[in-house]
Amino acid sequence: MKLSGVLPPIATPFKNGKVAYDKLKENFRKWNKTGLSGYLVLGSNGESGYLNERERLKMVEVSRDSIPKSKVMLVGTGLESTQETIRFTNEAARIGVDYALVVTPCYYKGAMKPQVLHDHFVAVAEASRIGILLYNVPQYTGVNMEPDLVAKLSHHPNILGIKDSSGNIGQLNQVIHNSEENFSVFTGSGPVLFPALCVGAVGGVLAVANAVPRECVKIYTLFTEGKLDQARALQNRLTPLANAVTTKHGIGGLKMAMDLAGYFGGVPRLPLKKPGPEIETELKGLLHQLTS
Amino acid sequence: MKLSGVLPPIATPFKNGKVAYDKLKENFRKWNKTGLSGYLVLGSNGESGYLNERERLKMVEVSRDSIPKSKVMLVGTGLESTQETIRFTNEAARIGVDYALVVTPCYYKGAMKPQVLHDHFVAVAEASRIGILLYNVPQYTGVNMEPDLVAKLSHHPNILGIKDSSGNIGQLNQVIHNSEENFSVFTGSGPVLFPALCVGAVGGVLAVANAVPRECVKIYTLFTEGKLDQARALQNRLTPLANAVTTKHGIGGLKMAMDLAGYFGGVPRLPLKKPGPEIETELKGLLHQLTS
Amino acid sequence: MKLSGVLPPIATPFKNGKVAYDKLKENFRKWNKTGLSGYLVLGSNGESGYLNERERLKMVEVSRDSIPKSKVMLVGTGLESTQETIRFTNEAARIGVDYALVVTPCYYKGAMKPQVLHDHFVAVAEASRIGILLYNVPQYTGVNMEPDLVAKLSHHPNILGIKDSSGNIGQLNQVIHNSEENFSVFTGSGPVLFPALCVGAVGGVLAVANAVPRECVKIYTLFTEGKLDQARALQNRLTPLANAVTTKHGIGGLKMAMDLAGYFGGVPRLPLKKPGPEIETELKGLLHQLTS
Amino acid sequence: MKLSGVLPPIATPFKNGKVAYDKLKENFRKWNKTGLSGYLVLGSNGESGYLNERERLKMVEVSRDSIPKSKVMLVGTGLESTQETIRFTNEAARIGVDYALVVTPCYYKGAMKPQVLHDHFVAVAEASRIGILLYNVPQYTGVNMEPDLVAKLSHHPNILGIKDSSGNIGQLNQVIHNSEENFSVFTGSGPVLFPALCVGAVGGVLAVANAVPRECVKIYTLFTEGKLDQARALQNRLTPLANAVTTKHGIGGLKMAMDLAGYFGGVPRLPLKKPGPEIETELKGLLHQLTS
Repeated sequence: MKLSGVLPPIATPFKNGKVAYDKLKENFRKWNKTGLSGYLVLGSNGESGYLNERERLKMVEVSRDSIPKSKVMLVGTGLESTQETIRFTNEAARIGVDYALVVTPCYYKGAMKPQVLHDHFVAVAEASRIGILLYNVPQYTGVNMEPDLVAKLSHHPNILGIKDSSGNIGQLNQVIHNSEENFSVFTGSGPVLFPALCVGAVGGVLAVANAVPRECVKIYTLFTEGKLDQARALQNRLTPLANAVTTKHGIGGLKMAMDLAGYFGGVPRLPLKKPGPEIETELKGLLHQLTS
Repeated sequence: MKLSGVLPPIATPFKNGKVAYDKLKENFRKWNKTGLSGYLVLGSNGESGYLNERERLKMVEVSRDSIPKSKVMLVGTGLESTQETIRFTNEAARIGVDYALVVTPCYYKGAMKPQVLHDHFVAVAEASRIGILLYNVPQYTGVNMEPDLVAKLSHHPNILGIKDSSGNIGQLNQVIHNSEENFSVFTGSGPVLFPALCVGAVGGVLAVANAVPRECVKIYTLFTEGKLDQARALQNRLTPLANAVTTKHGIGGLKMAMDLAGYFGGVPRLPLKKPGPEIETELKGLLHQLTS
Repeated sequence: MKLSGVLPPIATPFKNGKVAYDKLKENFRKWNKTGLSGYLVLGSNGESGYLNERERLKMVEVSRDSIPKSKVMLVGTGLESTQETIRFTNEAARIGVDYALVVTPCYYKGAMKPQVLHDHFVAVAEASRIGILLYNVPQYTGVNMEPDLVAKLSHHPNILGIKDSSGNIGQLNQVIHNSEENFSVFTGSGPVLFPALCVGAVGGVLAVANAVPRECVKIYTLFTEGKLDQARALQNRLTPLANAVTTKHGIGGLKMAMDLAGYFGGVPRLPLKKPGPEIETELKGLLHQLTS
Repeated sequence: MKLSGVLPPIATPFKNGKVAYDKLKENFRKWNKTGLSGYLVLGSNGESGYLNERERLKMVEVSRDSIPKSKVMLVGTGLESTQETIRFTNEAARIGVDYALVVTPCYYKGAMKPQVLHDHFVAVAEASRIGILLYNVPQYTGVNMEPDLVAKLSHHPNILGIKDSSGNIGQLNQVIHNSEENFSVFTGSGPVLFPALCVGAVGGVLAVANAVPRECVKIYTLFTEGKLDQARALQNRLTPLANAVTTKHGIGGLKMAMDLAGYFGGVPRLPLKKPGPEIETELKGLLHQLTS
């Protein structure tokens, strides 16, 4: 199972406050026709923290049924405590997912020293029945994994890669250069997919790929074909939308863009909200500019 | 039920990886003999995020049985989504707790704008069968509730107070001054209990009170008796320990101090750890200095 | 020369781009009739970094002539390099100022480790012909002096006090408690004058005292007379204006408030600007509310 | 005069506390034999803030004499006030420098809103007799220039480029893409020279180029020849040294590396210091690893 290319951290669709599994299947039918390499289920953009355990497991099961074996299936299984993370990772493994993505615990930020994070990830990797990828997303967690720590963990046989969403290309470069050779480094930041590939990333796990998977994949394939100028030019057209559906307008904005792009987005769960009509106009403009 | 004085956010005791409810009862028996006004169960210092739902409910039930009716019982019921927060708050209400302490949702920090937080707290307050207190703890959440927002929420008939753990006395002062008259403002920061009382706080919800409840209560009573110099002097003796068991050595340090002070502390859940022997020596010294 | 009470870090008046020394003298004539304990010349609020050396020296000379011997005269003499700081401190000493206020060097923030700051301040204190006070203002410098460092420096015979503008009362309390007994600790933050006094500060060096010296002094005297409730009540009336003329509207706002309060404020030097008419209305309201 | 390639922000040499102009000339003689495109005099790494005006002007004069006309000469002329910046920029112009590099004013961080910065840079550009480049270095100034502001300024006929030292490649990419076509965008961060070139930067103004100019230039030429794999590989060998001489060990570390590499480094001015022998060993190792 090759770890590379573009994967969306899929949005979780809701209708009337409940997870809309039928809409999820519809989205998968459409996404499966694009060049996406795979999917991340229960990532940050999947409002994972807003789902209860039952909903999470159902999300994994329905996604497993909808994702062809030719595509990678990642599931976000990281929780605050080591034992709950292990338990939930093996629940996901039982359902047949390929790899688990394990976020840094973060509530007690001050205590998340490198050695504490190291021991947590090693414990999870040792106990997990499937390979794991690290997940570094300091803008949400307030915790950053330094390249030295990642490099050390990259030598563990069951720690296979990382999704680094910091957007820090210097850090990504050092992670790639210092880590074990076959360690798979993904960026999690749409606006820097192109420079991430330039410094050696294997791909991106990108929120914006929920809405415009083909354009994201195109950047990746142009790059792998050595067409750098075209890849950069397409990145420059993607960047404003990629910024809009994450940093600027959050998950509500991402779901709105999905609706506009022909997928089911719907509303996020409260306290998150869908943005107003002026943002809809902005997103329409950005989509038009990118895809026309 | 008067909201004032000193309450510890009680530590959750573990033995062999399981919650040790017998040790919890022992701790309550000792705490009940001090002048504590009440207790916060499932707060940040209770490793609430490391407990599963079943453990949380059992913690509330056992605590309810152990807390005399003359003392206030608060329970931390805030979760990331509005609907889960409401559900869990009413679970706690069913068990007979006095008030719910509701933390700011925080994973999607960028989206937690004042209006979003306002609507979340109002929705919880409207749906809750018991009164709620706000919980502001930016060092853990990365989200700060500004005085204007708190003042606005203070007028809701079912929002009765706040625990502000920012340690920012200027902010606390403004919260107190701008809020509705009977709104109960607690500091959540042991090192600033005395100045918090000076600017009008009604008390403190203090981690260090798990280990040295009498000394914390003494600061409060000296202050209420107008003995400011003595209150300030005792605060100055408390501060080094208060810093040590929170900012410096975290929950592992707090539990170690509890063991040294005659309560059951034990180990925190992984990935948190108990500090090493040199910290034990430091804590012994600080305890000795305070209580001798 | 007693170090206590309220001192304004005086604004530098400009007319047609030049320092207006006549307006400065006018301001002093008015300030001298209030209960201010003294003055800080060339502080942050004096736009010190916007003056050339000649202007700075003239400011010190004119101020020296305008300040009666019964009031303390502090001058901000801290520059980036140790040798320039020493040179300028002794220039100020030659003119007859009482004490020098020396800010932490800050451009190379990452290099300003505690030992580097320690050695800088000791070198300045050793070479200075007048006593020095430390100046900690992290919101401008990005550098914070921890209580341990201040405590250590407080034992130097020529380091006599500190102006701490962090607004952090817990830190101020620790600075006071850990430092040498006669070390003079001032807050530099108007919104926390009252709690600063409660934890043992000797006074405040307060921007807002440029515009409303009497009200600031009144808080101090009420406190020293043991009238805590009245002191706190007046603080609560002062706080909105104190916030407005620093954090919110900067030096332009401070100068506008001075104009409205009967002093000469005028415009700051570019790139700083005077705020627009809606801020003038806000400041008028805040002044009216405080002084009526 | 072409603005591209690699320029060192030259270190200012000191002997016995005075600027050692002879050592400066020696360094230029060596640097001039490498492929450097030009030089930045009085940049952050030149300890500009530790020089008095007389020393600054002499630094510019001596440098002007030492820099051949075929190489670009930039001088850092930004000061806190608009009028002093204009005055000093035109002093530098009088001496015959090619371009002025103007840093964001920064002491009053909170007041440095986009419009304030915009008006400052336009005023300087209008009054300057030479073309100016913007200088964004948030790690020192605490102020960041957003891509939108830079893009707007890029259309001014006398604002010709920017040195962005944020190290943020996503931001650099947006600055490049949004700005006027011939606007020259340099990175100021050695560890990201390669990705900066990938997203369209014209070169780098790099501290580490003081010590290893040839290796920095080689990354640039390999890139322009389309030898991306070799450029990336050399970047990876440069990065540890580039991190060491800026973020990790500061200007003292940079000067130590210069001494080890055959240039005159010497000591920085106090309060900055030269690091100890264990850092010397580290730097020797990093230099050996890069150049062998």
